[in-house]
Amino acid sequence: MLATLRITAPDQSLSAALQQCIDQKTKPLGALGRLEALALQAGLIQQSLHPIVHKPGIIVFAGDHGIAAQGLVNPYPQAVTAQMVYNFLNGGAAINVFCAVHNLALSVVDAGVNHNFTPHSDLVDRKVAMGTQNYLYGKAMTDSACHEALEAGAALVREKQAAGCNTIGFGEMGIGNSAAASLIMHCITGIPLEDCVGAGTGANATQQALKLKTLQHALEKHGVPDDPFDVLATYGGFETVMICGAILQAAALQMMVVIDGFIVTAALLAAHRAHPDVLAYCVFAHSSHEKGHRAMLAYLGAAPLLQLDMRLGEGTGAALAIPLIKSAVGFLNHMATFAQAGVSTSGTTA
Amino acid sequence: MLATLRITAPDQSLSAALQQCIDQKTKPLGALGRLEALALQAGLIQQSLHPIVHKPGIIVFAGDHGIAAQGLVNPYPQAVTAQMVYNFLNGGAAINVFCAVHNLALSVVDAGVNHNFTPHSDLVDRKVAMGTQNYLYGKAMTDSACHEALEAGAALVREKQAAGCNTIGFGEMGIGNSAAASLIMHCITGIPLEDCVGAGTGANATQQALKLKTLQHALEKHGVPDDPFDVLATYGGFETVMICGAILQAAALQMMVVIDGFIVTAALLAAHRAHPDVLAYCVFAHSSHEKGHRAMLAYLGAAPLLQLDMRLGEGTGAALAIPLIKSAVGFLNHMATFAQAGVSTSGTTA
Repeated sequence: MLATLRITAPDQSLSAALQQCIDQKTKPLGALGRLEALALQAGLIQQSLHPIVHKPGIIVFAGDHGIAAQGLVNPYPQAVTAQMVYNFLNGGAAINVFCAVHNLALSVVDAGVNHNFTPHSDLVDRKVAMGTQNYLYGKAMTDSACHEALEAGAALVREKQAAGCNTIGFGEMGIGNSAAASLIMHCITGIPLEDCVGAGTGANATQQALKLKTLQHALEKHGVPDDPFDVLATYGGFETVMICGAILQAAALQMMVVIDGFIVTAALLAAHRAHPDVLAYCVFAHSSHEKGHRAMLAYLGAAPLLQLDMRLGEGTGAALAIPLIKSAVGFLNHMATFAQAGVSTSGTTA
Repeated sequence: MLATLRITAPDQSLSAALQQCIDQKTKPLGALGRLEALALQAGLIQQSLHPIVHKPGIIVFAGDHGIAAQGLVNPYPQAVTAQMVYNFLNGGAAINVFCAVHNLALSVVDAGVNHNFTPHSDLVDRKVAMGTQNYLYGKAMTDSACHEALEAGAALVREKQAAGCNTIGFGEMGIGNSAAASLIMHCITGIPLEDCVGAGTGANATQQALKLKTLQHALEKHGVPDDPFDVLATYGGFETVMICGAILQAAALQMMVVIDGFIVTAALLAAHRAHPDVLAYCVFAHSSHEKGHRAMLAYLGAAPLLQLDMRLGEGTGAALAIPLIKSAVGFLNHMATFAQAGVSTSGTTA
């Protein structure tokens, strides 16, 4: 599927008409700021003067990382990945709360957690393996496993879209996945590794130094693969790879893709290398407090909606941005024009 | 009433217990960033480990400014104030849309519009006069009218609170009110007038130069009153004064007060001069694109939640921030703790 995926930026011919709709609303020109650009983007993505946010949702992908068992890159033990999946299933995590507050559908996917879950009606089982291999010794996953994960992410998005969802965000859980994201960031952007490595879930200075040194060893072993999917197979986690496949499929289906923080943006970096036009479908939810995220956003030329110093993952930033997207399409659909409301325009001061 | 208003910062003794609740949630320490500070603030304001956002609402106050009839400070004609009130009543303005999207109660108040409205079930008539006087020739309003407006704003908040509202934002409509806000800002903060005067609804460079020159004339006539309520009486609009009274009453009632943009923050500057502890009850919704707003926020030591380059007024920034407040109290109330969820804490890497 992914080999034949067509992703093209939206036809821009509706742009002038959309801008005219925006400008005729009863407000000074440009007074809704970033929401106006968001409304325009939504209209172009949906090729409509009346874009809507329909059945918005978050998919959280969880996966384990072989390297995490050693504790070289992660202050929390690997077991936390599975523990947090249970927390998602029990409704106790931040992403559960934000989805409940903002009426978002939440799906939880076992992409490759190192734990055998008892079957649960709310857990989507797409386990590729019991976590990745340790990239200090070999590639994190085979090309075939990487392909399987990409396809699994894409297939989940097709299901969501078939059920009516047109706006989707992705989240992740995976102890060790900020380390993988740092390596992916370095390989795709060329930014020096030390500028790509941060605190993750909360590494202190000593732990961060060890994390950086460990990732340097990994880079010495594998180098910088040219192909973005090879980058993912070499260093990625199954959750990150599924998100990459999910982003690509969502863009191909002309959905609004709400980009969360550091890990999700790393997945997007690989997706963008493969299909640059994917960016036109992305709404950047927030600027994470994780070191490196700002540089990723700058590399992509992206302006995030929120700056709340969050660094939690799970799709929490994406969940908080969706109310803003709803507000943007809301004003485009429901505000009166100057003519409709009988309001005088400027330049007619009396 | 206002003379006897008691506003004291919340008792801080609950602070440690609240912080412990926040830190025990299943997330890395501090990973929810600004939302954690917001949850703490809400808990202190409500003196509860389980603060809630109950019946949140926006009150929009509309009033006319005597000076606006001359067109010296405003690119839109004065008639737009009344036209926009009809737009609010018909549901066609941005604030209507955002309140509908985010489930906020909206009240529209005629504080002093230069128009005789036919009675309307959704219009709250608190008209003090048919607009203020032109401050180029005399004070904008008498001290008695200023007092009446302060009390009217306060009384409306008491009604809201009696009906169960504990979180409230204020908005305004009034052609010419960014000019009044610039004068208030200058008088309260001492920041040079030229740094307080911006585009308002969209003045071009020539119009802004005329606006500044006009306001300099007003300042030459009246100077800088020492008393904050005298500042309001000299330069303010009825809508701005009612907001000042409303803010003070809301803080005295220990409500969360969601501060919108340039005009509302000008009203807060006067409230803060009179009662510095009012700040503890304020959540700063956004940084407006209106020149001067950032300097106001810096003067107050305030960090706004949103930076969306908006400059519309009406309470639109406040409306967009309330979902973030709901998210903050939501995580405090509904996230599981590490113990509840059986999730390992950091420092136990295995």
